[in-house]
Amino acid sequence: MGDEKWTDAVGFSMDHSYRLVISCPDRVGIVAGVSRYIAESGGWLSEASYHSDRETGWFYMRNEILADSLDISLEEFRGGFADLAAQYGMQWQLRDSAERRRLVLLASKASHCLADILHRWHSGELPCEISGVISNHEQLRGMVEWHGIPYHRVEMDVTDKSAAFAQIDRIIDSCGGEVIVLARFMQIIPEQMCQRYYGKMLNIHHSFLPSFVGARPYQRAYERGVKLIGATCHYVTEVLDQGPILEQDVVRVSHRHSVDDMIRLGRDVEQKVLARGLRAHLEDRVMVHGNKTIVFD
Amino acid sequence: MGDEKWTDAVGFSMDHSYRLVISCPDRVGIVAGVSRYIAESGGWLSEASYHSDRETGWFYMRNEILADSLDISLEEFRGGFADLAAQYGMQWQLRDSAERRRLVLLASKASHCLADILHRWHSGELPCEISGVISNHEQLRGMVEWHGIPYHRVEMDVTDKSAAFAQIDRIIDSCGGEVIVLARFMQIIPEQMCQRYYGKMLNIHHSFLPSFVGARPYQRAYERGVKLIGATCHYVTEVLDQGPILEQDVVRVSHRHSVDDMIRLGRDVEQKVLARGLRAHLEDRVMVHGNKTIVFD
Amino acid sequence: MGDEKWTDAVGFSMDHSYRLVISCPDRVGIVAGVSRYIAESGGWLSEASYHSDRETGWFYMRNEILADSLDISLEEFRGGFADLAAQYGMQWQLRDSAERRRLVLLASKASHCLADILHRWHSGELPCEISGVISNHEQLRGMVEWHGIPYHRVEMDVTDKSAAFAQIDRIIDSCGGEVIVLARFMQIIPEQMCQRYYGKMLNIHHSFLPSFVGARPYQRAYERGVKLIGATCHYVTEVLDQGPILEQDVVRVSHRHSVDDMIRLGRDVEQKVLARGLRAHLEDRVMVHGNKTIVFD
Amino acid sequence: MGDEKWTDAVGFSMDHSYRLVISCPDRVGIVAGVSRYIAESGGWLSEASYHSDRETGWFYMRNEILADSLDISLEEFRGGFADLAAQYGMQWQLRDSAERRRLVLLASKASHCLADILHRWHSGELPCEISGVISNHEQLRGMVEWHGIPYHRVEMDVTDKSAAFAQIDRIIDSCGGEVIVLARFMQIIPEQMCQRYYGKMLNIHHSFLPSFVGARPYQRAYERGVKLIGATCHYVTEVLDQGPILEQDVVRVSHRHSVDDMIRLGRDVEQKVLARGLRAHLEDRVMVHGNKTIVFD
Repeated sequence: MGDEKWTDAVGFSMDHSYRLVISCPDRVGIVAGVSRYIAESGGWLSEASYHSDRETGWFYMRNEILADSLDISLEEFRGGFADLAAQYGMQWQLRDSAERRRLVLLASKASHCLADILHRWHSGELPCEISGVISNHEQLRGMVEWHGIPYHRVEMDVTDKSAAFAQIDRIIDSCGGEVIVLARFMQIIPEQMCQRYYGKMLNIHHSFLPSFVGARPYQRAYERGVKLIGATCHYVTEVLDQGPILEQDVVRVSHRHSVDDMIRLGRDVEQKVLARGLRAHLEDRVMVHGNKTIVFD
Repeated sequence: MGDEKWTDAVGFSMDHSYRLVISCPDRVGIVAGVSRYIAESGGWLSEASYHSDRETGWFYMRNEILADSLDISLEEFRGGFADLAAQYGMQWQLRDSAERRRLVLLASKASHCLADILHRWHSGELPCEISGVISNHEQLRGMVEWHGIPYHRVEMDVTDKSAAFAQIDRIIDSCGGEVIVLARFMQIIPEQMCQRYYGKMLNIHHSFLPSFVGARPYQRAYERGVKLIGATCHYVTEVLDQGPILEQDVVRVSHRHSVDDMIRLGRDVEQKVLARGLRAHLEDRVMVHGNKTIVFD
Repeated sequence: MGDEKWTDAVGFSMDHSYRLVISCPDRVGIVAGVSRYIAESGGWLSEASYHSDRETGWFYMRNEILADSLDISLEEFRGGFADLAAQYGMQWQLRDSAERRRLVLLASKASHCLADILHRWHSGELPCEISGVISNHEQLRGMVEWHGIPYHRVEMDVTDKSAAFAQIDRIIDSCGGEVIVLARFMQIIPEQMCQRYYGKMLNIHHSFLPSFVGARPYQRAYERGVKLIGATCHYVTEVLDQGPILEQDVVRVSHRHSVDDMIRLGRDVEQKVLARGLRAHLEDRVMVHGNKTIVFD
Repeated sequence: MGDEKWTDAVGFSMDHSYRLVISCPDRVGIVAGVSRYIAESGGWLSEASYHSDRETGWFYMRNEILADSLDISLEEFRGGFADLAAQYGMQWQLRDSAERRRLVLLASKASHCLADILHRWHSGELPCEISGVISNHEQLRGMVEWHGIPYHRVEMDVTDKSAAFAQIDRIIDSCGGEVIVLARFMQIIPEQMCQRYYGKMLNIHHSFLPSFVGARPYQRAYERGVKLIGATCHYVTEVLDQGPILEQDVVRVSHRHSVDDMIRLGRDVEQKVLARGLRAHLEDRVMVHGNKTIVFD
């Protein structure tokens, strides 16, 4: 089985695909209906994932269809699928992998998460554009501008941050920001901004949530004497550090580690967790399900 | 999305399912064809996984169908599916989750893997029967018999092991062994027995393969000064420690660890890796693909 | 360097040692004083570990001395050391590795942690005696008694558990229990018992503390949608799940895992974490430092 | 114990220390002799680690002494210690943490390891100077020069690389290179250069050694069907990928991962493993012991 090598078996480009992401009440026949529609359009599946949530009776599906394989245009495919979707009560989206979304990053003084994302983007690993970086400090300007990305400094009046956030909102608009990443931004996002970017704004929190919600998690981890520290990538919601989690990881620590050591070791985990969460988001692998996520990896 | 809780959404038992596992040359329409057949039989998918191997142009699929949901009998379902399968040139199997396969374990003196599997089976975690344990030593008899499992001692003539292996073969037959697990058996399996149980005989090797193929891997890991040691669960083939890998894991070691420490730490990894590999096998999650595996977890 | 192999270099048995564990206010000369005393007694160090806590100005030390190497008896060594210890204001203990402490295990119905500890003990991996198992259920009797260990059933009156705990206390006494392990005992230990066995009673909690203190941690982990679940081995104190942590670990989960899957996967982590914590405790590697631990591994 | 908080307990700066690293034949009294000498000089130990290698009868020791605490100058301390060292037949070195060694990096086209090291250095995490980057390609010049570091392009004649390596040698000399890091340099280092920088030249190999020595390890990992891929940081010796290992780590892969995915996932492991190995080296935590390392972390 599989011994006959069909080099270049498929004949279609693997680099260009359409991602069809669906959720609806579960019932018999959804996979059959969707996959028949795809097949009748000539669609070659390079990847397909399903999840049937037993508790809520809800169904989730992600199909990756090779773009070249379709007999019809993307718009025709979309139009035809809308009828099927209506029939099953589906929420759905169809995205062209060639469309690179515009990312806006918010940062403060800490450079590690920002530097990591910029490097991944620069070396072609992250499928997005980066249309701007916003910060309440100057420190990171040089690094950002070297990458050819506009750097926006926003002054924060600590007694009233509303003007600063209004300005941030305008900058995001002017950048055409479709995905917002808080790369250790260290400011609490106003409620209305959380709502506006619901499911599109990712944060990296420097603890293994739900442990150490809020400020100074490494200090508190040190005081509690935990043997692992971690980081969490989650969507931002109105309730601090309570949004749907995309990704988490940990690293081992011991009595030998000071708070400063934890901060240093934690940086590596934060980078990795944010990069993984962001990549999954950009590849349309994440579906929000109440306060949880389905991540089709 | 998903906020309306449909408690007991499905209405069918989640505990009884049919597992349909398929491989065939990849082409447009396979998922559509298979899922339509399932849907037309009333089949409710509790799980579905696909893999399209780009290099070989081969397609792999595993469907878990809730048994209660089918309108027709398993045999009718099987019969109908055979037609479809022929059309697509499929290799396939359909298994009832209620059918518990008969496991035969081969062991030597080391108890840890055997004890772990027996405990998991005893506490209902492993979906199989254990119809016998075969060993070339007496040490483990008490533990095995306490679990109500027959213990077969086979004397090994070190100058000619063929009689012993012929006896082992007969015992496996008399036990009706369908899955064979080498739980640190420490003997090289004769070629013909490897062939007979191809894809049904699992071994746990005490290194991270392909490092340290063969004897005394911990000693050699110690001598090489590696910083991680590992274990590998693989199907047994004629070439020692070269069969398709189901599962691997590692544990960190340092200069402080002697060979004995590595042996001790390694036992925990061996247990875990074997248990995971075996569980995947028993749940029909593993498909062999040349000398590699697809594991639908 | 190190090329000349001195096989059996030491000439003393590595299997028998004295463990000298010390804590005191940090100052210059402690290591010099202690190591001079050991050297003058002929003591060959097979292991030595130090920790200087910067925040509290406290010093921690563990020396493992090969028993055969000492020129004087253990009691003479102890006597001489007492003078030095007084001079530095040391808290200290000196233990013979040949003295195997008596362990008493408390369990409920879940067998996995108990089975794991019994197996490790049975195969000689755990340096202790097991003098009894106490449970409020009957289920585990067979397994325990097969190992030749007395099983004590204690009835729990759910409206008033004080009689049960008084009985448990008496059984521990009659067993000569020196180390108490709550192997998924699932009962809150009375305050006075916590105090009595302070630093000698280990619990395994089935979450990554401080996440999910208290009941049903897997259910809550499932509801929060975390991507890792964990377990924590800690000393029992009066405040539930807040005692000094000896060891923690995690395992990755995803949206595919139900609460039952988490319970199953979590069992393996619980076993491993408890075994590691217990082993460290029995080897006198753990020192309590406020609400934290120093673990000299 | 430890409840009395001695904030700023020590009174000496924790940021400046002397690292005394020793190896010698093991015997009774080494720790006593060394620690007495340190104490008599007023030396406050912030860290101390020992290893007694049972197999070779060799002893390894690392002491970190707070610089401010010494009553005498570093040179006086060094002079006095030389006498003691001679007495015990010690190989030793004493290094001031304030002395930042000069690092020279060799790279090819892949940017990830270089970018990671440059960022760590730039943000003050790596205790060294970077005095130059040498590459046989132009690609990384911009990134390096933005950091204010000289970039040296060396043309490689593939038919005879000796001229290129002679030039590399001269550049290292002119940079005063004390530590050489092959950050995915992808060229085999000539024997004489291996010898010249023995114990000072670190490589990152993109596999879990000893698996997949040599070229194209991800391709071979893919073909073997391993379930984990890894990276190894080791000292370079004349025998390819066989030098003493400082650090290793792995990441999980599955049948879903192509070679390109493995290359991408592997990059993160390579970065992390190289950074950890390099940091340990720069903090004088690594001692070479035959073909193995002692890493005092």
